[in-house]
Amino acid sequence: MAEKPSVPKGTRDFTPEEMLRRNYIFNTIRGVFERYAYVPIETPAMEKLSTLLGKYGDEGDKLLFKILNSGDYLNKVDDNELADKNSNALLSKISEKGLRYDLTVPFARFVVQHQNELSFPFKRYQIQPVWRADRPQKGRYREFYQCDVDVIGSDALINEFELVQIIDEVFTLLNIPVIVKINNRKLLLGIAESMGLQEQFMNITVAIDKLDKIGEEKVIDEICSHGIDKDKAKQLLEVFTLNGDFALKLEVLKKQLSNSESGLKGIAEVEKLWSYFATMKFNAEIELDLSLARGLNYYTGAIFEVKARDVQIGSICGGGRYDDLTGIFGLKEMSGVGVSFGADRIYDVLLQSNLFPEAEMKQSDVLFVNFGEKEEAYCLPILAKLRHLGLRAEVIMVGEEEMNTGKLKLKNMQIGEEKFLSVDELLSEFRK
Amino acid sequence: MAEKPSVPKGTRDFTPEEMLRRNYIFNTIRGVFERYAYVPIETPAMEKLSTLLGKYGDEGDKLLFKILNSGDYLNKVDDNELADKNSNALLSKISEKGLRYDLTVPFARFVVQHQNELSFPFKRYQIQPVWRADRPQKGRYREFYQCDVDVIGSDALINEFELVQIIDEVFTLLNIPVIVKINNRKLLLGIAESMGLQEQFMNITVAIDKLDKIGEEKVIDEICSHGIDKDKAKQLLEVFTLNGDFALKLEVLKKQLSNSESGLKGIAEVEKLWSYFATMKFNAEIELDLSLARGLNYYTGAIFEVKARDVQIGSICGGGRYDDLTGIFGLKEMSGVGVSFGADRIYDVLLQSNLFPEAEMKQSDVLFVNFGEKEEAYCLPILAKLRHLGLRAEVIMVGEEEMNTGKLKLKNMQIGEEKFLSVDELLSEFRK
Repeated sequence: MAEKPSVPKGTRDFTPEEMLRRNYIFNTIRGVFERYAYVPIETPAMEKLSTLLGKYGDEGDKLLFKILNSGDYLNKVDDNELADKNSNALLSKISEKGLRYDLTVPFARFVVQHQNELSFPFKRYQIQPVWRADRPQKGRYREFYQCDVDVIGSDALINEFELVQIIDEVFTLLNIPVIVKINNRKLLLGIAESMGLQEQFMNITVAIDKLDKIGEEKVIDEICSHGIDKDKAKQLLEVFTLNGDFALKLEVLKKQLSNSESGLKGIAEVEKLWSYFATMKFNAEIELDLSLARGLNYYTGAIFEVKARDVQIGSICGGGRYDDLTGIFGLKEMSGVGVSFGADRIYDVLLQSNLFPEAEMKQSDVLFVNFGEKEEAYCLPILAKLRHLGLRAEVIMVGEEEMNTGKLKLKNMQIGEEKFLSVDELLSEFRK
Repeated sequence: MAEKPSVPKGTRDFTPEEMLRRNYIFNTIRGVFERYAYVPIETPAMEKLSTLLGKYGDEGDKLLFKILNSGDYLNKVDDNELADKNSNALLSKISEKGLRYDLTVPFARFVVQHQNELSFPFKRYQIQPVWRADRPQKGRYREFYQCDVDVIGSDALINEFELVQIIDEVFTLLNIPVIVKINNRKLLLGIAESMGLQEQFMNITVAIDKLDKIGEEKVIDEICSHGIDKDKAKQLLEVFTLNGDFALKLEVLKKQLSNSESGLKGIAEVEKLWSYFATMKFNAEIELDLSLARGLNYYTGAIFEVKARDVQIGSICGGGRYDDLTGIFGLKEMSGVGVSFGADRIYDVLLQSNLFPEAEMKQSDVLFVNFGEKEEAYCLPILAKLRHLGLRAEVIMVGEEEMNTGKLKLKNMQIGEEKFLSVDELLSEFRK
């Protein structure tokens, strides 16, 4: 084999150094999830295509990795179908499974499938890779990890508050200063309603979602392209991009949305949520951002997005409330809310800001170097004792002198200091 | 959607209860790997088919899950090829990637690809799922986890010794009594050579590998089917199934293999390995089992297999030395040795023997039940303090009385005892 072997485009190996850094992130996130009494689940890498298709829009359907049926997969295909050479039409005949595209749809499927085993509200977390056949580019991979935390079966706003506490705690522990942007889909709908544009709500949210990327003018153009006149589009933008503190925004909204049922519900929800925020101090900056829309259609209440304050990168965490996610699998009236932490972007932020803690990144505590067979036999029982102390010990420096004097040379690699110690002294040194 | 959603055949969801048990296994194994200074790597779920095909035999090639190329995957296929309706022939045109089948071949690929970044000997562990399109049955899944530990770039037998220490420590911590069966492929080759049967070595090992499943007579039949006469086959079996302690087996082998170069090397290797074993006490029973063959062709020295003593189930850990695994990817002379722990079978053993420790299986430490909005606001800061102590706390029992007296009811769910405590008393109770 002449060619050097490699991994598929858009996928990555993780070296031990990268694994230590990644595990630091996962362990931090998992630790917070567990302190908030969320419990872990895992779902299979493969799901039936019937579970996945149609849940992520047409674009998402295309980006699913499909698995070829086993064995003689062409067996069931009839000759005419084959002759048509239609990749799309043939698909359902030769593939029944796809790789997980996110953790939300598998979670909904899990809740419906296991509904009789679970007690609700069910608070679960899930940390697993997902796969998307996206065009790979800097920071975008075909295999990447999501860290999701959701509570399902409760519509109480204390859950939203708890998620913001979790976000604040994770990024405090990781030393990443963040802004948590919060909005509510009911407010967005209310704004549209207050201007008679409720029919255009989806188009408006799709356009407003692009504000960061394409700027105000182009958003206005996009809104107008749906037959809304320019003055109204500008008025919309004015509300969405309203500046000021929470109290001021609330005041404007109360006037603007006084006639919208949805809008008034939205106002009540954000007021309640902010009253929870008042019970404690956050390290994160929390902002009501009326321009936050989030593309996904299944969100119906609060929506969240977290940005790092010191690093230019997309959102590093996001989510929201969905009132009917399990409805697609036949279980109605299961309101849920959750957020997803993007481990790969968090990794990039920590690396760029040099925030990985040195102490967590060490690989082995004690290293033995032996010079021969006799020295080896002498080292083995000492090694075993060090490992029993929980040290990561590997085969140091034992030569004839050490064996004769019964003293081992212990070198502190950080400060360069050397000490000669007996085995007992060595063990008690490490017991400290 | 009328049908209840489900996972693909042979795959599983893991509920929180199962996850706690599984994590107990993974954490135990990982902890031991790390104490022995092995470092983690991860490889992508997908590998190029060129990496995977031809590495697991014809049967393995069939059992690989293949991923359909993205987009218009029929585009590059010419009409004649399509008209042939040959699933096998078409495969290479419509699929370039497959799911990981084990962790050994991806590890070999990793070592070759990253050879300039690694220092050798390289001691790595890897805990990840693998996928096989096998017929699902009790205890056999299409998605299951392997926990592999390997050292590559050293042919020193101290590595074999270290792996047996790791095995002993893992199963001691898990409280599973085990037998570690050890053999050496050089001894097997030596036995074949000593009887002039070196040409038939692979056929003999394939047959002997089935001894447990099909019994002596059928093994003899299979050996004879390769043109070996029955007397010789019986003689072979006699050596392979030799009873007695290590010293006795060694004595017989020394006589039998005196003229086989390979056999003498094998003897020297097991003698050296057993001299390491003499330096310490194991909880595991260690046995030189001359009938242990292990099907995989790439093994060239020591081979291992671990069985639970009290539960009838296949091997729960196995592995061996391979002198040229990276050779298939163009890197010669990289001897390695490793073992793989089967997490799913270990799970079954622990469950059947009721060995999962109660204390590790708890989900949340403190549970708050609140009765209304005011109680909720009262609870939130107390909850935050409990979480800061590292407790997994969820929203207990705070009613008007508790708020008025400033005393909370703490109920110990294990012994049923109730206490009334102030917030400070509550916190110091948990600090213990």
